[in-house]
Amino acid sequence: MLQELRERVCEANLELHRRGIVLYTWGNVSGIDRARGAIVIKPSGVPYAALTPEKMVVVGLNDEVVEGELNPSTDTRTHTVLYRAFPGIGGVAHTHSPYAVAWAQARREIPCYGTTHADYCFGPVPCTAPLTSEQIRRDYERETGLEIIRTFAGIDPLARPMVLVNGHGPFAWGRSAGEADRNAVILEEIARIASATLALDANAPPLEEHILTYHYERKHGPGAWYGQKDQTA
Amino acid sequence: MLQELRERVCEANLELHRRGIVLYTWGNVSGIDRARGAIVIKPSGVPYAALTPEKMVVVGLNDEVVEGELNPSTDTRTHTVLYRAFPGIGGVAHTHSPYAVAWAQARREIPCYGTTHADYCFGPVPCTAPLTSEQIRRDYERETGLEIIRTFAGIDPLARPMVLVNGHGPFAWGRSAGEADRNAVILEEIARIASATLALDANAPPLEEHILTYHYERKHGPGAWYGQKDQTA
Amino acid sequence: MLQELRERVCEANLELHRRGIVLYTWGNVSGIDRARGAIVIKPSGVPYAALTPEKMVVVGLNDEVVEGELNPSTDTRTHTVLYRAFPGIGGVAHTHSPYAVAWAQARREIPCYGTTHADYCFGPVPCTAPLTSEQIRRDYERETGLEIIRTFAGIDPLARPMVLVNGHGPFAWGRSAGEADRNAVILEEIARIASATLALDANAPPLEEHILTYHYERKHGPGAWYGQKDQTA
Amino acid sequence: MLQELRERVCEANLELHRRGIVLYTWGNVSGIDRARGAIVIKPSGVPYAALTPEKMVVVGLNDEVVEGELNPSTDTRTHTVLYRAFPGIGGVAHTHSPYAVAWAQARREIPCYGTTHADYCFGPVPCTAPLTSEQIRRDYERETGLEIIRTFAGIDPLARPMVLVNGHGPFAWGRSAGEADRNAVILEEIARIASATLALDANAPPLEEHILTYHYERKHGPGAWYGQKDQTA
Repeated sequence: MLQELRERVCEANLELHRRGIVLYTWGNVSGIDRARGAIVIKPSGVPYAALTPEKMVVVGLNDEVVEGELNPSTDTRTHTVLYRAFPGIGGVAHTHSPYAVAWAQARREIPCYGTTHADYCFGPVPCTAPLTSEQIRRDYERETGLEIIRTFAGIDPLARPMVLVNGHGPFAWGRSAGEADRNAVILEEIARIASATLALDANAPPLEEHILTYHYERKHGPGAWYGQKDQTA
Repeated sequence: MLQELRERVCEANLELHRRGIVLYTWGNVSGIDRARGAIVIKPSGVPYAALTPEKMVVVGLNDEVVEGELNPSTDTRTHTVLYRAFPGIGGVAHTHSPYAVAWAQARREIPCYGTTHADYCFGPVPCTAPLTSEQIRRDYERETGLEIIRTFAGIDPLARPMVLVNGHGPFAWGRSAGEADRNAVILEEIARIASATLALDANAPPLEEHILTYHYERKHGPGAWYGQKDQTA
Repeated sequence: MLQELRERVCEANLELHRRGIVLYTWGNVSGIDRARGAIVIKPSGVPYAALTPEKMVVVGLNDEVVEGELNPSTDTRTHTVLYRAFPGIGGVAHTHSPYAVAWAQARREIPCYGTTHADYCFGPVPCTAPLTSEQIRRDYERETGLEIIRTFAGIDPLARPMVLVNGHGPFAWGRSAGEADRNAVILEEIARIASATLALDANAPPLEEHILTYHYERKHGPGAWYGQKDQTA
Repeated sequence: MLQELRERVCEANLELHRRGIVLYTWGNVSGIDRARGAIVIKPSGVPYAALTPEKMVVVGLNDEVVEGELNPSTDTRTHTVLYRAFPGIGGVAHTHSPYAVAWAQARREIPCYGTTHADYCFGPVPCTAPLTSEQIRRDYERETGLEIIRTFAGIDPLARPMVLVNGHGPFAWGRSAGEADRNAVILEEIARIASATLALDANAPPLEEHILTYHYERKHGPGAWYGQKDQTA
């Protein structure tokens, strides 16, 4: 079942590791088959060297394991909340990449300081509010997802496909597992460059609105002219 | 047509990637055949793994595509402005290398803090003024080039073969695509070291004028004595 | 004698090197066979490329060399103090990994700024008091171990399997040499991210107690649900 | 002539490159045969990929080229000054490694913040005074060497085998070309860790004198007990 999606999700998990932003098992990527309502996700705590498409776990949109003998990622319920709330997304990636985590730990959104950021995220990368102990008692992973949803009230999740979870770290998403992956890598680079920018000027101004808009539209607007006509991402 | 230049430009693009300063497709290098007025440039958004000399695009000095089925880099019109204004240059490289981008986002020129910088750039690395919304409406990529030209009024572009575009990132150039490449890599290293210098002393003084001059002349002056007699770069 | 432990300790030493946190011979890992009271440790100053299980040195809990023709690591007496005081540990790792050393040189404990830290260390990473000249005259390596013990009064060493030695660098431990290794690598990553966090906010708050507890329990509590049922680490 | 020294110096140059602290041709290592008064040094501006023992240049202690068809490194006269003034040294290495250059550009000596530093350098890494324009007119490379000598008045060059040249970058030396090499790599690591230390505490105190002495003696004193008995470095 879902052989192709299993392969793509497995590959997306391995790719995150190859990109050098995941230490040990500190990351997980999932992808969804919307027609079947089935999510393929990395098993919990399995080393990257041992990952195969067969070891991926299939879960439903209500968190139930549909197929697979291994436990799914402990963050699964955060992924499913995102899939339910953001119908346009096809993949979710979570990492502990160092600079994105540093911003999450400093509990600051990442301002859009330049075109590198604007090319992929239309405005600051939001940071969620911290979870209360009541939320943690209720369901930590699920509440983490719900906080992300709350943070994105009024924001198009595909125009800003990334978020910092307060005191924790980044989640990214996209139209596919591969795109979620790429956005997680880009978020780390954006965070790293933003840190270096702040070190040069603690009051660095954000990019002017008109350049932000221009750059984002160049890659993502209806008449986008970046790349080749038959490219999907 | 232009087979040798295609090969050299393709190789220069791949080399930038191998040097680790280009993430995904975040860079482009071009080279010019002055006799024919033909510029060879990377196609837009094509992954480095898929680049071949045949996929390079040939454009004229007025931005028209002369040969090639793929779209040229979206930054093409910035490259052509530079070739028209700086007759001594043979190659242009654009990247989003992190430390150079950080200086561009902090909107600061990079002072010449030491001989590593002085060996390749005779004075600070300039930073352009920000573009107005009027300029963006007119022609963003072309205006980016024109701002660079304005910034270099009275400056020899071969004595300072690099610039930071405000809120965006670096462009570098040289007598050939390979030299433009090397200058883009060196700019990133200069920017990184300058950031580390500022972290140690927020008021670090620039290099004394007499040492700046000595170092630059040692490598680039009429009687340069660095390297071997038959070296061209 | 102790062939399997020799192999695992040799592999743990090589793994530290492969992880890129050990320059030259700046690190050593040991493991203990509690039943025999025998510790296997890296020989002093031998390059990683030349390490083999046969070259490992076996010492007793009172520091006497039991087997091996090479000198054991000069830090051996620090390791043996830890094995005597912390009966639950099976391995010890010492490195000079750069960010952990920076915190040790700044003589600061590493606050628990986020879940990445909380997943492995239940509270701040402690920093020992500096050694007096009297302590150094007595027995530097042994006193280093004793200072660590003093610092851990009232702290479960397996809940915080890492420490910074004042003005020196990190030690980490675990149930096995491999786990000590992994904790040394994680300490370096925690230290690096904490440095990046402080750069963004010099007054960054520590993680809320209830999230710290939740995350630590998720991986290490009696009903831990991270990973797969048959995993030991 | 000097085949073995040529091989060792060539290898030391390649090793610096492999260690990742030399960009392009930004470094040079030499070694001396004291009996013959002959120095083997890297040729100027030759890429590392093309270096062979045969291409090394032999110069005398008065800077005259004794053997070799290529120009010797432009920094040769700095090397020869050091060999004349420091009779105990057998090798010299010069790089533009980024953190050491940052300290040289901030024109600050590197305080001895911890044992990692103390193991190799007995006290701060000195920084020279800047060169005057008079000195540059006279003989830049030679005066650079003379400034280093002046800076080491009263300091044993083998107890502190490294220096920062003001506004320029590091030189390191040792009993052999290989040891000079290793000291250049260690200087870069010391500088990087010192930068990270200062970022955590702008007033970080230096290591206590009694620990500095203990650590240095452990590796370099008459009764050194680090490493194995038959080790030379």
